[in-house]
Amino acid sequence: MGGENRKFPVRTLVKVLRFNEQGLIPTVIQDVKSKRVLTLCYLNREALEKSLADGKVYVFRRSQNRLMLKGETSGHVQLIKRVYVDCEGKSLLFAVRQHVAGCHQGYFTCYFRRLAQTGRLAMAERRVFDPAKIYTRSA
Amino acid sequence: MGGENRKFPVRTLVKVLRFNEQGLIPTVIQDVKSKRVLTLCYLNREALEKSLADGKVYVFRRSQNRLMLKGETSGHVQLIKRVYVDCEGKSLLFAVRQHVAGCHQGYFTCYFRRLAQTGRLAMAERRVFDPAKIYTRSA
Repeated sequence: MGGENRKFPVRTLVKVLRFNEQGLIPTVIQDVKSKRVLTLCYLNREALEKSLADGKVYVFRRSQNRLMLKGETSGHVQLIKRVYVDCEGKSLLFAVRQHVAGCHQGYFTCYFRRLAQTGRLAMAERRVFDPAKIYTRSA
Repeated sequence: MGGENRKFPVRTLVKVLRFNEQGLIPTVIQDVKSKRVLTLCYLNREALEKSLADGKVYVFRRSQNRLMLKGETSGHVQLIKRVYVDCEGKSLLFAVRQHVAGCHQGYFTCYFRRLAQTGRLAMAERRVFDPAKIYTRSA
């Protein structure tokens, strides 16, 4: 679970970034191995600095008014392997090593529902874990 | 360039979507073949309906106050192959067949700059086309 954390200096990166009106930068999280898109999250500057200093994804949890390590409760952390910035400095892409699964609801990715050509939403993945067993407290 | 456009009914999908305060839904665009993340764009409801009805990505261009086909000028269209929605209905993921290149600046993806562990931004891709030759008018 531990392993080689990569740390990235943030200074040059921050110069080209254009945080949005809420002070956030949208960040696409992609699994480095399968290349599947895991989720889209929003980092404020503090969360970005902490993520790059630590080599793990942190997000700002508004409801708790604090930085939170992704996977803090579940242990399903995301180790940052590569960091990309888009042409306009308006979003980031992190290639990560995902431990167990990326989605709160027990799926590897948050995009587990696929729109069928009939118009219905179909399950595109099977559950990897049971959320009820992992998140015992409604923290 | 033409080919089998997929069309998706939008009704069920729209029911689970939570557009943001600006009436937009962030949409991650991934190349279906290479699995590389091409870009992150924002669709209003009209752009979403048009994209799914047509099987090609359209965005709402604020500066021109109109829907615009991605690749309208360059011909570098994105054919939608699969559509996914995240666990919270707050973002979409389109798997597309990208014609030529996805980025305005001539690269296959918009994430052509990578943060090196030295802290510098390095080019992660080579240019696929010369923007000066494609975008002759500043439309």
